[in-house]
Amino acid sequence: MSDISSMAAAAKAASHKMAVLDSEVKNNALKLIAEELNASSAKIFEANVIDIKNAEEQNLDKPLLKRLKFDEKKLKEVTDGIGSLIGLDEPVGRKLLHTTLDDGLELYRVTSPIGVIGVIFESRPDALVQIASLCLKSSNAVFLKGGREAENTNKVLADVIYTTGVKAGLPEGWLHLLTTREDVNAMLSLDKYIDLIIPRGSNAFVQYIMKNTLIPVMGHADGVCHTYISEDCDRDLALKVLLDAKTQYVSVCNATETLLIDESLKASFLPVIVAALREADVEIFGDEQVSSMFRCEKASEWHHEYLDYKIAIKLVSGIDEAIEHINTYGSGHTDAIITSSKEKAEKFMDSVDSGSVLVNCSTRFADGFRYGFGAEVGISTSKLHARGPVGLEGLVSYKYKLYGNGHIVADYSSGDKKFKHIRRNV
Amino acid sequence: MSDISSMAAAAKAASHKMAVLDSEVKNNALKLIAEELNASSAKIFEANVIDIKNAEEQNLDKPLLKRLKFDEKKLKEVTDGIGSLIGLDEPVGRKLLHTTLDDGLELYRVTSPIGVIGVIFESRPDALVQIASLCLKSSNAVFLKGGREAENTNKVLADVIYTTGVKAGLPEGWLHLLTTREDVNAMLSLDKYIDLIIPRGSNAFVQYIMKNTLIPVMGHADGVCHTYISEDCDRDLALKVLLDAKTQYVSVCNATETLLIDESLKASFLPVIVAALREADVEIFGDEQVSSMFRCEKASEWHHEYLDYKIAIKLVSGIDEAIEHINTYGSGHTDAIITSSKEKAEKFMDSVDSGSVLVNCSTRFADGFRYGFGAEVGISTSKLHARGPVGLEGLVSYKYKLYGNGHIVADYSSGDKKFKHIRRNV
Repeated sequence: MSDISSMAAAAKAASHKMAVLDSEVKNNALKLIAEELNASSAKIFEANVIDIKNAEEQNLDKPLLKRLKFDEKKLKEVTDGIGSLIGLDEPVGRKLLHTTLDDGLELYRVTSPIGVIGVIFESRPDALVQIASLCLKSSNAVFLKGGREAENTNKVLADVIYTTGVKAGLPEGWLHLLTTREDVNAMLSLDKYIDLIIPRGSNAFVQYIMKNTLIPVMGHADGVCHTYISEDCDRDLALKVLLDAKTQYVSVCNATETLLIDESLKASFLPVIVAALREADVEIFGDEQVSSMFRCEKASEWHHEYLDYKIAIKLVSGIDEAIEHINTYGSGHTDAIITSSKEKAEKFMDSVDSGSVLVNCSTRFADGFRYGFGAEVGISTSKLHARGPVGLEGLVSYKYKLYGNGHIVADYSSGDKKFKHIRRNV
Repeated sequence: MSDISSMAAAAKAASHKMAVLDSEVKNNALKLIAEELNASSAKIFEANVIDIKNAEEQNLDKPLLKRLKFDEKKLKEVTDGIGSLIGLDEPVGRKLLHTTLDDGLELYRVTSPIGVIGVIFESRPDALVQIASLCLKSSNAVFLKGGREAENTNKVLADVIYTTGVKAGLPEGWLHLLTTREDVNAMLSLDKYIDLIIPRGSNAFVQYIMKNTLIPVMGHADGVCHTYISEDCDRDLALKVLLDAKTQYVSVCNATETLLIDESLKASFLPVIVAALREADVEIFGDEQVSSMFRCEKASEWHHEYLDYKIAIKLVSGIDEAIEHINTYGSGHTDAIITSSKEKAEKFMDSVDSGSVLVNCSTRFADGFRYGFGAEVGISTSKLHARGPVGLEGLVSYKYKLYGNGHIVADYSSGDKKFKHIRRNV
């Protein structure tokens, strides 16, 4: 048995013990972890200085260096985050359904942990703390693999979190830190022990994970988000929202990548939009008409995630073409309509097959924190299990509990007894 | 584009139209389908006679012939089933969550269809009607592939259901019947169009499906279900429940395959159990002690689904060993404890990591109809999305709908505005 395989077996065993932990034990562990992170700040910052120094020597770009940094401010953010997690309701053991099948035969659907979750995340050490504490709160054992650049910081953080957790009553083996790409590949083959993989990172990376494991994968490969401007829009509102959706933060999955706009607005409003986008340093890629009208390049393909100050613009004949375009070329992530018509808004929101559909606001809102879920483990474009921004609720499953008193199926098959199926309030 | 690929593209387009159908249109379509099935009974029975004749010529065994039969009784069952489906609440568009993010910025989590579902099922023509009507009610387009033996019956049934559905306002392409194994293989590669595969059938078949597609798969490969008898059980109750769990219907996934029993009962109660099982023609496979005590074969492996009048018996030192055995060798399907201790029952139900956990009743209860879900599309041993028996609720996803009025993220990033995150009742 490889190292990773025996670690995974240990995590599986730990997950069964995690499943029966009291809320008090888990919340106390979270409290102690936050305290111990504060007490270990010198050690953490020291490790982070080494990671930053190494990254600078390797000429990593500025945004990455910024994400890599773990200082007093980041420490306060993550310990505050743990504090709010403690305050959230217990996610495990929540009754979702109660049906009296017959006298003395009571069925419950109750939330339960998923088991062992493998999370592969980018070079933000604060992500490690968020993910570990979300998994703890939801009674899941966890495999963590962070960016190589954050190696030293992650090691100290994981040590503090794991050791403090065990001291506070969590089972041994509840958290494992993986350090190499080979470890990740080994993990992908352990569908016997690992119940869910959450990959965060580039499109190519997520695709690679999805194609190389039998373990269910939750996440998104890309975010080709659209804003559709309908002819009946409020123009000031449309312009303000579009600029936010495109430029507020360009390198994120919920930034708008394609503008669809009614053809009837091409002379009266589109020039204003294009001027404003160009004023904000956004490069335009147009369809046939747009590229000739505004002397810009043609968009080479419609399913394209720029993650940059770039936008594709396409004229559409109306809402039906807009919906069809999005359902054909989008990625099921986040799409918005700007309209004054309630009917059009409802049609768009019902017909567009995406995790988040928005009316008259920026696609940038599609995010676990902004949606009020506390932290998020990622955004899912899968339609199974969890969709859209995923918080604690996406980290639990459920099981059915049936309480009887000697009930046998033969009595119901023979017709001697009949099911009552009385739905109770939960 | 292959035939299957263009069919799948058509199904995808249809699924977007299915998503916005009114309840009335869907329920009326179901009503007309039931009527048209009755009106077409002669044609259906005729086709079924051919299937039965072919099966007899090929010497198919009796249970299969019985499942293949589609007569007045089966027709009444499926049309009654459609009737009760019409009476169920609309599964799409149900509000699951409502949060006011800020003044005028309202977030809803709303159930939505999954999209295109591929279902591969065994040789029961009635299953085709059940699955098609469940998919219709939940606004999903569907690919159906039934057993080859039921080919003629399935063709007539699918024709009636599809044609009547389209006449009643469902979009063209909402249902496709696949006829060959090659069609199934082609379908498995169409992750671009198909959102979920539900395979029903043998362990080897389901494993094959899981290993040969990137499409999420919902179902179960096997059902190695346990009944654990604790020393403090009511013995009459234990015997009655165990016999039902093992013998009421042996060839199904929720029949008990392994009896775990406290060692302290080996002299006083186990002989009574063994005698009763043998009286019911059940062959015993024991652990070391059991096989020598009762002169039976040793169980060769503990993860074994007999689907027959056979049972494995293992002595355990107590509840902890029972739980560990089940979590190690079980299949996460359905497991029961027989005990008079409320504490032991709760410990077992919290610790055993299975879709259904039961106390003092038969494992045979784990079934969508018995649980009160109406029909079921299958039983899931996955911990993601739907677990245990899966009814209508397992055939829907959700999406987030966000209604704003020109809201932009920049206002919240700058600190000018703060989220309120007021959770509303739904």
